[in-house]
Amino acid sequence: MTDIQQRLEENLSQQAFMTSLGARVGMVMDGEVHIELPFSAHLAQRNGGLHAGAAISIAHIASAYAAVTQLGAEKTAVVAEIKINFLRPIMGEHFVAIGRVAHKGKTMSVCTCEVQAFQAGTVRHKVAALVQATLVHVPNHKS
Amino acid sequence: MTDIQQRLEENLSQQAFMTSLGARVGMVMDGEVHIELPFSAHLAQRNGGLHAGAAISIAHIASAYAAVTQLGAEKTAVVAEIKINFLRPIMGEHFVAIGRVAHKGKTMSVCTCEVQAFQAGTVRHKVAALVQATLVHVPNHKS
Amino acid sequence: MTDIQQRLEENLSQQAFMTSLGARVGMVMDGEVHIELPFSAHLAQRNGGLHAGAAISIAHIASAYAAVTQLGAEKTAVVAEIKINFLRPIMGEHFVAIGRVAHKGKTMSVCTCEVQAFQAGTVRHKVAALVQATLVHVPNHKS
Amino acid sequence: MTDIQQRLEENLSQQAFMTSLGARVGMVMDGEVHIELPFSAHLAQRNGGLHAGAAISIAHIASAYAAVTQLGAEKTAVVAEIKINFLRPIMGEHFVAIGRVAHKGKTMSVCTCEVQAFQAGTVRHKVAALVQATLVHVPNHKS
Repeated sequence: MTDIQQRLEENLSQQAFMTSLGARVGMVMDGEVHIELPFSAHLAQRNGGLHAGAAISIAHIASAYAAVTQLGAEKTAVVAEIKINFLRPIMGEHFVAIGRVAHKGKTMSVCTCEVQAFQAGTVRHKVAALVQATLVHVPNHKS
Repeated sequence: MTDIQQRLEENLSQQAFMTSLGARVGMVMDGEVHIELPFSAHLAQRNGGLHAGAAISIAHIASAYAAVTQLGAEKTAVVAEIKINFLRPIMGEHFVAIGRVAHKGKTMSVCTCEVQAFQAGTVRHKVAALVQATLVHVPNHKS
Repeated sequence: MTDIQQRLEENLSQQAFMTSLGARVGMVMDGEVHIELPFSAHLAQRNGGLHAGAAISIAHIASAYAAVTQLGAEKTAVVAEIKINFLRPIMGEHFVAIGRVAHKGKTMSVCTCEVQAFQAGTVRHKVAALVQATLVHVPNHKS
Repeated sequence: MTDIQQRLEENLSQQAFMTSLGARVGMVMDGEVHIELPFSAHLAQRNGGLHAGAAISIAHIASAYAAVTQLGAEKTAVVAEIKINFLRPIMGEHFVAIGRVAHKGKTMSVCTCEVQAFQAGTVRHKVAALVQATLVHVPNHKS
C-alpha cells in the first residue's frame, strides 16, 4: 500500500459520517481516487435505490481526495463548492464515485467526479451522477 | 397540521437515509420548507462538525420539498442538479436547511437553500452553506 | 460619486468587451452592484430577446464588482466559477444584473446575482436568470 | 457538409450576438460540437485576453449544439443552467469551445464543455475553462 493510499484510508476512518455510510477508499492514483459504497438498507431512498444525499457524500470525498493526491503531506484540499447532476434513479448493489483532477492550480484544483451504479448479474455499470467541484488547498492540521 | 405538512412528513419517514440521519420536517409554507437536523456523533467530520455530505443531504430534501409545496398532490419534484457553496466549518448542535422556491416554471422550479448552524448558548445562527438547484416536476407515483 | 463607484466605472471602461456590449455601472452599494444593459440589435438571440451569453456576461461583472466593494483598493475579485439558471426568454428593452455578496470570507466571496428584464410600458420587471458564483480575492495590479 | 452541420451554421447565423462576437461552427459530430472564435479587440478583458463573458457565450452555444446533434429536426435544446470554472487568464489568438453530451435522457441532456486557448507559434492549447450544463429538449419553432 502506497503512502498516499494509507493516508487517505486513515483520513476516511476518522470521518464518522463516512464510516456510518459504509464508504471505503478504493483505487488511488495520481489525480484520481475511487470511493466505494455497498448498498445498505439505511442508505435507501423511497424507491429502494441509493439516496441522492449518500451519492453526493461519496462524490464529495472522492473529489477532495483526488485533489489531495497531488498535494504534499503538509496540505489538504477543501471543497469550496460542488455541483452535481443526477442522471437516473441510483439503483444497484454497489456504487463507486470516481473523482479526477481536471486542473491543478497554485491554490485551487477543479475536479470532476462520476458516480457509477453496479447491479449484480450485469456486466456494465450505469453512470448515475456527474460532478464538477472547486477545491481550495489549505494547510493540513493533523488530528 | 396542514395536508402538505403531513404529506412531507410521511414522505420523509419513507426515506430510510433521512431517518438514519435524524432529519425532521420543520416549518412548511407555500414555497418554503425547513428541514431540521440535530447533531449526532455518526454525522461528524474529522473536525467534530457536521459532515458536508450530511449538510448537502438535508439541503437537497429542503429544496425538493419547497418545490413540492407548489405542486398538486399528483406531482412531485425531482432534483435534476444541485450546486452548493460551503462558507465555513459546519459547527453546532442543531442545523436547519431552509429551502425556498426562487422561480416556479411550467415543468421545472429553481430553488435556493441556506444551511444554518446553531450553537447552544448563542443567540444567532451562522450560515454554513448556500444552494441553488434545478428541480423537475414529475408524476407522483405513490409508494 | 463615491470613490468605489469611480473605480468600478473606470474598470468597466477598460474592458473592451463590456463597452462593446453597451454595459454601464448603475447603483453601487456596500456588497451590491447593478450593471445596466440597454437592448441593442447586436445582442439578440434568434427570438429577438437578449442572448443568454450577454446576460451571463453582465451577471459575471455584477457579481465580481459586488465582491470588489468589500475589498480595499489593493485587492480585486476574480470569478473562479459561476453558475446561472435561466428562467425564461430574456425579452425587454432594458436589463439590469444585480450582484450581491452573500458571504465574504478571508480569501473568497460567494455572490448571488439576479438578471432583471424591463419592458417599456410595464410597471414591473421579470427575473430572467439567477446566479451563484465563487470569487477569489487577488492582488490588484493596476493597468 | 452534413445536414446537421448546415442546420447549426444556419442557426448560428441567425443569432446576432454570435455573429457580432465572430463565432463560427467548427467540427460537428454525434454528441460533440466545436465553436471557434478568433480573438478580436472588441472581445478583450483589461488584461488583453479574451473576456470571460465571451468564453461563456461560446461554451453555452457549444453545449446546446452538442445536445441538438442527438435530437431530431423537430426538437431543439435549451440551456436550463450552466456552470463554468475558469482555470487561468484566457490568453490566445484563437479559441475553441468543445461541447460534448455526457448523458442524453428522455427530456434533458447533460453536457460538458471545454474552452481551449491557442497561442500562435505554440504546438499545444491550454484549457481555459470547464463547463457542466443542463439542457432541456423543447419543440423546435422554425424562425
